[in-house]
Amino acid sequence: MNKMIFKTYTQSEHVFFKDCWYVAALSTDVDAFNLFKRKIMNINVVIYRTEDGKPVALHDRCPHRFAPLSLGRREGDQLVCPYHALKFDCTGQCIHNPHGKGHIPTAAIVQAFPLVERYGFIWIWMGNTEKVDENLIPDYSELVSGHPNSVGHTYMHVKCNFELLTDNVMDLSHIDHVHGEIITTRGKLSPIIPQVTETHNSISARWEWEQQPAMMIFAPLLPDPQESAQQYFNIIWTAPSHIQLTVAAVQNGEFGVDDLNQYDLHTTTPETDTTTHYFFATRRNHIEEDASFNVMKIQNMHRAFEDEDVPLLEAVQTEMETTDFFSLDPVLMSNDIAPVRVRKKLLELINQETQQNQA
Amino acid sequence: MNKMIFKTYTQSEHVFFKDCWYVAALSTDVDAFNLFKRKIMNINVVIYRTEDGKPVALHDRCPHRFAPLSLGRREGDQLVCPYHALKFDCTGQCIHNPHGKGHIPTAAIVQAFPLVERYGFIWIWMGNTEKVDENLIPDYSELVSGHPNSVGHTYMHVKCNFELLTDNVMDLSHIDHVHGEIITTRGKLSPIIPQVTETHNSISARWEWEQQPAMMIFAPLLPDPQESAQQYFNIIWTAPSHIQLTVAAVQNGEFGVDDLNQYDLHTTTPETDTTTHYFFATRRNHIEEDASFNVMKIQNMHRAFEDEDVPLLEAVQTEMETTDFFSLDPVLMSNDIAPVRVRKKLLELINQETQQNQA
Amino acid sequence: MNKMIFKTYTQSEHVFFKDCWYVAALSTDVDAFNLFKRKIMNINVVIYRTEDGKPVALHDRCPHRFAPLSLGRREGDQLVCPYHALKFDCTGQCIHNPHGKGHIPTAAIVQAFPLVERYGFIWIWMGNTEKVDENLIPDYSELVSGHPNSVGHTYMHVKCNFELLTDNVMDLSHIDHVHGEIITTRGKLSPIIPQVTETHNSISARWEWEQQPAMMIFAPLLPDPQESAQQYFNIIWTAPSHIQLTVAAVQNGEFGVDDLNQYDLHTTTPETDTTTHYFFATRRNHIEEDASFNVMKIQNMHRAFEDEDVPLLEAVQTEMETTDFFSLDPVLMSNDIAPVRVRKKLLELINQETQQNQA
Repeated sequence: MNKMIFKTYTQSEHVFFKDCWYVAALSTDVDAFNLFKRKIMNINVVIYRTEDGKPVALHDRCPHRFAPLSLGRREGDQLVCPYHALKFDCTGQCIHNPHGKGHIPTAAIVQAFPLVERYGFIWIWMGNTEKVDENLIPDYSELVSGHPNSVGHTYMHVKCNFELLTDNVMDLSHIDHVHGEIITTRGKLSPIIPQVTETHNSISARWEWEQQPAMMIFAPLLPDPQESAQQYFNIIWTAPSHIQLTVAAVQNGEFGVDDLNQYDLHTTTPETDTTTHYFFATRRNHIEEDASFNVMKIQNMHRAFEDEDVPLLEAVQTEMETTDFFSLDPVLMSNDIAPVRVRKKLLELINQETQQNQA
Repeated sequence: MNKMIFKTYTQSEHVFFKDCWYVAALSTDVDAFNLFKRKIMNINVVIYRTEDGKPVALHDRCPHRFAPLSLGRREGDQLVCPYHALKFDCTGQCIHNPHGKGHIPTAAIVQAFPLVERYGFIWIWMGNTEKVDENLIPDYSELVSGHPNSVGHTYMHVKCNFELLTDNVMDLSHIDHVHGEIITTRGKLSPIIPQVTETHNSISARWEWEQQPAMMIFAPLLPDPQESAQQYFNIIWTAPSHIQLTVAAVQNGEFGVDDLNQYDLHTTTPETDTTTHYFFATRRNHIEEDASFNVMKIQNMHRAFEDEDVPLLEAVQTEMETTDFFSLDPVLMSNDIAPVRVRKKLLELINQETQQNQA
Repeated sequence: MNKMIFKTYTQSEHVFFKDCWYVAALSTDVDAFNLFKRKIMNINVVIYRTEDGKPVALHDRCPHRFAPLSLGRREGDQLVCPYHALKFDCTGQCIHNPHGKGHIPTAAIVQAFPLVERYGFIWIWMGNTEKVDENLIPDYSELVSGHPNSVGHTYMHVKCNFELLTDNVMDLSHIDHVHGEIITTRGKLSPIIPQVTETHNSISARWEWEQQPAMMIFAPLLPDPQESAQQYFNIIWTAPSHIQLTVAAVQNGEFGVDDLNQYDLHTTTPETDTTTHYFFATRRNHIEEDASFNVMKIQNMHRAFEDEDVPLLEAVQTEMETTDFFSLDPVLMSNDIAPVRVRKKLLELINQETQQNQA
């Protein structure tokens, strides 16, 4: 009554799709000892591993006086609030109150978020816990199907809305215009209108073309490095924000399972409406055992993204000043078919979720 | 009509209790020569001393074109605006206009704020000047009743709402969890439910307990330093934001006026809704004449607060994103009795004031 | 529906006068090769020179996915978007789309802003292009009528609303209070109520006085440097924000065309509601051919403004927290006659423009 709410700039004005899995962290982000803090869809989360190594995630906010638990300390698998020492177990239940007679209020519970550790990532469920289902994590087992040195993971913090990152990967035509020599298609990609297919929660796109020589990541490994090669990109977006991408090259005119290829996972998690956690993993089916090649590979891809995509995407966010893409009347072209279908599918899923939650 | 007001982030959305005294500055903040600028409840104030040493406070804003007078210059007891040289006396009345025929517009008056200098602080009245009454400053004379070297004053700027600071002192149970060895009660404080009493504008709380040995600030001065001691905390909050705290230790089982004790004053002044001027003074009735001990004492207390309380309180503010504590449904416990009564009393007083001012 | 617009802090809440010329840049800001980016009235603009040296200005935002064209590259007189390589000619028409079949969508047009290069400035028309008329640029040919070394231009970015800068020049009485010895009138200016005259889109003011010695910029060049001189200031504001100022000194009691004088142009362009591009040029009719004197002269004037006016104007902006001057009930005086007539004239013109655009 006497006080009005002081609405802050970071408060969400965006409706996110919530009853689904997002990546919260790389497995390597969360060690055996420390409390790892991350903001996900405007909610602060603390993640740590129990003594048996299982990751757990709690709302990073004591229900008493709202101190971040990540500033507190661990006692075995339990967290002690830094302010008044309420102790919580890894389900979020308060199990010790040092004050007064030690009565534990019924409401002294911290929200716990279900986690699954898979494919080198820790996946989190931020929505309705009654709907949690591990099987809703897409099958990315191919990522970790080879030698450990054939796969690399990395993370970037990006100052744009997560959908701009989805757009970027769903419209691979940008490669020839934004990126350098290493993955150039020599202009062959842009003219192609990809085949786009759809399921209830995914959109796929496929481009096939011939170029001479092949992309630099493949050419030296092909039978005739200087000669023409047949290539494809295959991408599958799965709601809310996971994109599996395969790129391959052959010289025999026929694609098959043993093609020289690279299998990537791009997945994003909204931090706020205008900032995003970007996770990326890449696995190749060649030079698989070379650890230093693997390190170089993931570093180069990280650097290419940071130097070439990020400045552009952050400039677009600044220019848009909103996260509502369609309200700005974008001039859409053939290369927007896949990303626009993704944006519409996501809106559809958010509408469904909103209706379900109101029912 | 053509222009809309450009509402800024710092504008107040908070109703403050105004017809009362706040501390504007330490006496030592305002010297004989300079203009001291401080924002209080979102209003910029310039404070200076007249040639006879009396502090005066004016709205730091020329009524002509809104230049800060604190960027101007003094002429004796008068202030000259830095922009067009309007001159104001220390009541805020414009007494010289160098422009045109020198006519002084009736409205050329800067608001003056009543000040009282007492107990090493400069107290300011930001509200209705018809209600000003020096007697409404609580009696903290004990603070300055001893040797000059027995008392120290300090100031901190804190990025949280002032009520979080009040909560912090009114719930002393945090001492064992937030602070180090020097004032630990060895866990004895938290289990105690303090006695809480109330007047029309104050809330008091008292804790008594036994610990072995006594707090480190007292133990070496007691008859048997290693032995058990009886201790108490007595705190009195007086509206809007002044907290007098006494802590004492004895070994004879009976508290009296000559106990080994320390008498502190914690008082806060809102700068904005989410930033606060925190003033603190401490007086001890032992080792009273030692100047270097006095310096060390106030420095240590300043540092403990900055290192231990401030990071936590600022993190709580960030997490709350609002100043309306109750809207967040805090889980309240026995240690919240005193601070919650303070918050409710303050709301009551603000309601009264709002009704009086509307009447 | 699912997403709300995320309104940012920089979004305009201010109605600007738009069907008129503003200065976009100094001629020297835009070279033969680079893309020059500038925000004008909250709109990002990219300015560059075609191969024949003519400056052009486009909205710095690709209509496809809103990437800033200023991050792209030139191909002759054309701009290539950095993101997906749409190519635009210097009228803003998309002339190449590398995607799909190369179809160019009808809406693939970037807004072009008319430019005129004159008097060492590049002037821009941000409003209704049907009304563009080069003759609406005031005649400032006197600025460039002498030896090239008799005129200097400079630019400053200032964190206040542009009307505070207009006020500052229109009320020259501030000179004696804000500035140093070099242009002091020795207090003679403030008591004078200037003659103010008006046309449909301009306000002029003139001050005449006698001082001894003359301003330091003139005294050494007068017949009797130590003696009294007759001086005048003549200023003409032309909507929206151009102020021509002449200052002169004589010792024969009669002003004429050959007086020792200085002819300045102060002109501002809103960047946002609370930040401004300030452009300034000065031409003298003495020591005309001395290049190093010219450099020293413009540097000194730049420095005086940055050191003396800017801190004050930015402090006023901070204190006002709004751009709506009259809503703050300023206490107005005789020295405000000219600036207040300017503010009212501008409001009148904005009202007219709003009505025309609604008709």
